Amino acid sequence: MATDSCFYSIIDYTVDGPETQTELVRAFAEIQEQWVNFHPGYLSARFHVSTDGTRVYNIVRWESEADYRRFVETSDTDGRMAAIERALAGLSGTAEPRMSGSPTYTVVREVGPRVTE
Amino acid sequence: MATDSCFYSIIDYTVDGPETQTELVRAFAEIQEQWVNFHPGYLSARFHVSTDGTRVYNIVRWESEADYRRFVETSDTDGRMAAIERALAGLSGTAEPRMSGSPTYTVVREVGPRVTE
Repeated sequence: MATDSCFYSIIDYTVDGPETQTELVRAFAEIQEQWVNFHPGYLSARFHVSTDGTRVYNIVRWESEADYRRFVETSDTDGRMAAIERALAGLSGTAEPRMSGSPTYTVVREVGPRVTE
Repeated sequence: MATDSCFYSIIDYTVDGPETQTELVRAFAEIQEQWVNFHPGYLSARFHVSTDGTRVYNIVRWESEADYRRFVETSDTDGRMAAIERALAGLSGTAEPRMSGSPTYTVVREVGPRVTE
């Protein structure tokens, strides 16, 4: 049972330091704006950077799995992949993907704060 | 510049299939309830499971970095770590951590839907 009816993709990289972290966020935010965020059902992309400067997670939220699937089927995947390759090639430092398997997710459980009397 | 003033930790595992995914979420949700979610500033733990059954992300959100730091300093870290080890040992399948470096994060950017006229 999903906690919400949203659908997520999680993009996950290790990087060689805070500068590359900043560059990766800027480049991937541009990719969202140029290739993704106008498709129906797109809700947000949130960029999480580790406080030690070595990792970046981008969590992209879609209203539903159907919206995500339609995006995948109708969007220019080749163009988007080429833009991602260019973005990675343009970094001053190095970035390594940490994704494994399919990058699509649902949220199955949320634990809130304990309610005390 | 952070997008929000929250502070995050991200717990990230690969697992050997959907059953282990379910077991890991159940076990780690219990750990949140027994060891974490009553500390001041705790907001939520959200469990993201991959649709291919091979990965689990738990994203824990704190109201501020100060709240997280106070939790780390004042909580029973040894007890919590032992509970995590027991949880992992109790799984039917295998789970491998994918964390690297410090697991603490801020959200530095959010890209919303494109606004069209």
